[in-house]
Amino acid sequence: MGSREAIQRDGKVYLSRRYKFAAAHRLYSDKLSQEENERVFGKCANPQGHGHNYELVVTVAGPVDSLTGMCIDLSRLDDAVKGYILDRYDHRHLNLDVEDFLETVPTGENIARQIWSLLEPVLGGERLYRIKLVETRDNYFEYYGDHEASI
Amino acid sequence: MGSREAIQRDGKVYLSRRYKFAAAHRLYSDKLSQEENERVFGKCANPQGHGHNYELVVTVAGPVDSLTGMCIDLSRLDDAVKGYILDRYDHRHLNLDVEDFLETVPTGENIARQIWSLLEPVLGGERLYRIKLVETRDNYFEYYGDHEASI
Amino acid sequence: MGSREAIQRDGKVYLSRRYKFAAAHRLYSDKLSQEENERVFGKCANPQGHGHNYELVVTVAGPVDSLTGMCIDLSRLDDAVKGYILDRYDHRHLNLDVEDFLETVPTGENIARQIWSLLEPVLGGERLYRIKLVETRDNYFEYYGDHEASI
Amino acid sequence: MGSREAIQRDGKVYLSRRYKFAAAHRLYSDKLSQEENERVFGKCANPQGHGHNYELVVTVAGPVDSLTGMCIDLSRLDDAVKGYILDRYDHRHLNLDVEDFLETVPTGENIARQIWSLLEPVLGGERLYRIKLVETRDNYFEYYGDHEASI
Amino acid sequence: MGSREAIQRDGKVYLSRRYKFAAAHRLYSDKLSQEENERVFGKCANPQGHGHNYELVVTVAGPVDSLTGMCIDLSRLDDAVKGYILDRYDHRHLNLDVEDFLETVPTGENIARQIWSLLEPVLGGERLYRIKLVETRDNYFEYYGDHEASI
Amino acid sequence: MGSREAIQRDGKVYLSRRYKFAAAHRLYSDKLSQEENERVFGKCANPQGHGHNYELVVTVAGPVDSLTGMCIDLSRLDDAVKGYILDRYDHRHLNLDVEDFLETVPTGENIARQIWSLLEPVLGGERLYRIKLVETRDNYFEYYGDHEASI
Repeated sequence: MGSREAIQRDGKVYLSRRYKFAAAHRLYSDKLSQEENERVFGKCANPQGHGHNYELVVTVAGPVDSLTGMCIDLSRLDDAVKGYILDRYDHRHLNLDVEDFLETVPTGENIARQIWSLLEPVLGGERLYRIKLVETRDNYFEYYGDHEASI
Repeated sequence: MGSREAIQRDGKVYLSRRYKFAAAHRLYSDKLSQEENERVFGKCANPQGHGHNYELVVTVAGPVDSLTGMCIDLSRLDDAVKGYILDRYDHRHLNLDVEDFLETVPTGENIARQIWSLLEPVLGGERLYRIKLVETRDNYFEYYGDHEASI
Repeated sequence: MGSREAIQRDGKVYLSRRYKFAAAHRLYSDKLSQEENERVFGKCANPQGHGHNYELVVTVAGPVDSLTGMCIDLSRLDDAVKGYILDRYDHRHLNLDVEDFLETVPTGENIARQIWSLLEPVLGGERLYRIKLVETRDNYFEYYGDHEASI
Repeated sequence: MGSREAIQRDGKVYLSRRYKFAAAHRLYSDKLSQEENERVFGKCANPQGHGHNYELVVTVAGPVDSLTGMCIDLSRLDDAVKGYILDRYDHRHLNLDVEDFLETVPTGENIARQIWSLLEPVLGGERLYRIKLVETRDNYFEYYGDHEASI
Repeated sequence: MGSREAIQRDGKVYLSRRYKFAAAHRLYSDKLSQEENERVFGKCANPQGHGHNYELVVTVAGPVDSLTGMCIDLSRLDDAVKGYILDRYDHRHLNLDVEDFLETVPTGENIARQIWSLLEPVLGGERLYRIKLVETRDNYFEYYGDHEASI
Repeated sequence: MGSREAIQRDGKVYLSRRYKFAAAHRLYSDKLSQEENERVFGKCANPQGHGHNYELVVTVAGPVDSLTGMCIDLSRLDDAVKGYILDRYDHRHLNLDVEDFLETVPTGENIARQIWSLLEPVLGGERLYRIKLVETRDNYFEYYGDHEASI
């Protein structure tokens, strides 16, 4: 058996659950010149912003409880995502309404990482496995945490 | 044969083509009080707006050309939708950037009707059959024109 | 302009909204013999039943309110579907838990018609346009009411 | 009640069923010059052809049988589509393998009409309501028959 | 090159194939009190059960045969899934008809693990990589085996 | 923390982007007898070929740039995929038009590997993480490169 299988076959079940939020955003950085903003972000830098139906897929992993047959308490997961993410981002303009992105460009990359850092303390680092953020039909971002950061 | 079949069986082919645009909007009317705005539009009335990945499905109908086997020149359709709709709405804040919605609330209903009135003069009233606007995964709006208006 | 266009172009907007419920059912009729049940319904006649994730798409139609830009009060629609349909069918065994199907086979056809007859009195016959019931990825049923019945 | 409702509310259930076939085709007509072929069909005129995963949605309509709760015998529908369409088109090069398109350009329009004319005699003109052919994610064709032709 | 790449880049192709089955189930354990069952499983504990359209995605991995260009004999995979899983679960009430779940709660977690243990001996532990079970549009479960168990 | 987490938590963001191409292909090898071709490839060996709407999902990984908030220059990715893959495969007959498959059977496995070997030199081995090729609704292939080959 190769090294890959040895690592993957951890006996855990990986549960993924999809959530949605609709938000406006603008890709623009004060630290870049107007020309650089337009070159890097294109029409995403339009002044008033645009928007997306974001899909958020949260994957948690764990051994299966022999009594309940479940790897996580679903209502606990739903409460965490609703309380820490959806109530914060849904139907907001990310750049203007949400402090997480007052200084940080709300790219898919940064939103995914920010969601990780909001959920990890609540769900536990052992349990949270992946944040997947679907921005458009043809674009998605995945983040698995940062070993360095979590040490 | 019932009356329905008699009307439907018109020998035409109905071609539907899907386009996309991402935009921000806010549901809010100056003509309503703050309380009414909140009651009618809920969180969609948040001041800075939110956003969606809109899907636009344009259906045109016509008899099939015996030589080309087609019911419309596709590049003409694409050019019309790009020039009159996508360039106008994509990556915009509908309330702030687009004159169509300076006075009109950009609900799905109004966006669909506005797209109809922009495309009908270009594609021709005989040809344009339906505007379908998908706002979220679970919500869409269809508009077939207004016989009264077009007389 | 042909007869089809004259009828379709009613100036209304058609709003469709998707709901979900998960239910068990069994296709079996006491009025048929065991052999006939198996021939007509195949494995759907298995004694203990099986199940589906049903998608219900409700389409309502109406003129657009010039003030709100909407063709229906969405919360009224959601309340009606939740109160009259989802609370009744979701996470139930249709044949055993729901009186609608104690005497009637819960085929997609019958479920769609039953949902129509439950929603029409609440939403109004002028407003309700279509019930679409998606039973599996490759099967769906549409019902538009019965003119005879509604006279 | 407006004329539209009077026609639509026919008490029938409309059952739609999805089928798939994968085929190669080339859009090219011997009756057009090379230049015209390229202008009309673009890269679809490439000599060796290209291909699609076609989705075929067949809609049949009928009153619901009070005993079985069904509007059509599904196995009869499946047999007809398999025998007359899928066995004929699936895993074929439409222009080279299928006589229907030796003289006729296999556009989506023509394939949809051809499927109608193959299925209508088998399923019956009262029953067959619509042929929908999905050619790509963003393109589909619908055909409802031709009243003139069927008289 | 980091450790991740070293492990992932195994030169294999991972083939995933989607299957479907419709089944009823009930989440309830005799080992829990009625109150605990309701707290843990909510409406999923309703006595008569409910149901789902399950999607099963089986991923197998292997080096590519230089002659056929394939990493597995597809008909062998289809036969295994049909014979060992679909014939066993499709159109069944999992709790009442299938011995696998007479003692075990048929949660998504347990169904995924059970499918793994049914397929691994047939397909071979070297070849079977992942079982993915999609229970609803917004919920899925993945299982990669258990290294401990397979030693 | 187990070995899996240690490897996965690399602080990178994985960006996936979906592209499409429509192509014809035939599964057939000159090195196999006619009987073997039919046994291995079934109807996919039909002489004139058939076709698919292929979806190509390219996943690249990298640390997030602190200024732009992005892990890759998207236009560079789009240019590479368009120039090296889509212009080469889209609206082609893979066996007849594309030199990559004059000697090699264009199975999903081989197309995925070939796309990897065309994109890796352009995007860089550190950056390209996965090639996913969706051939039909129910079939997809993933390739992560070959560590042996890249040494």
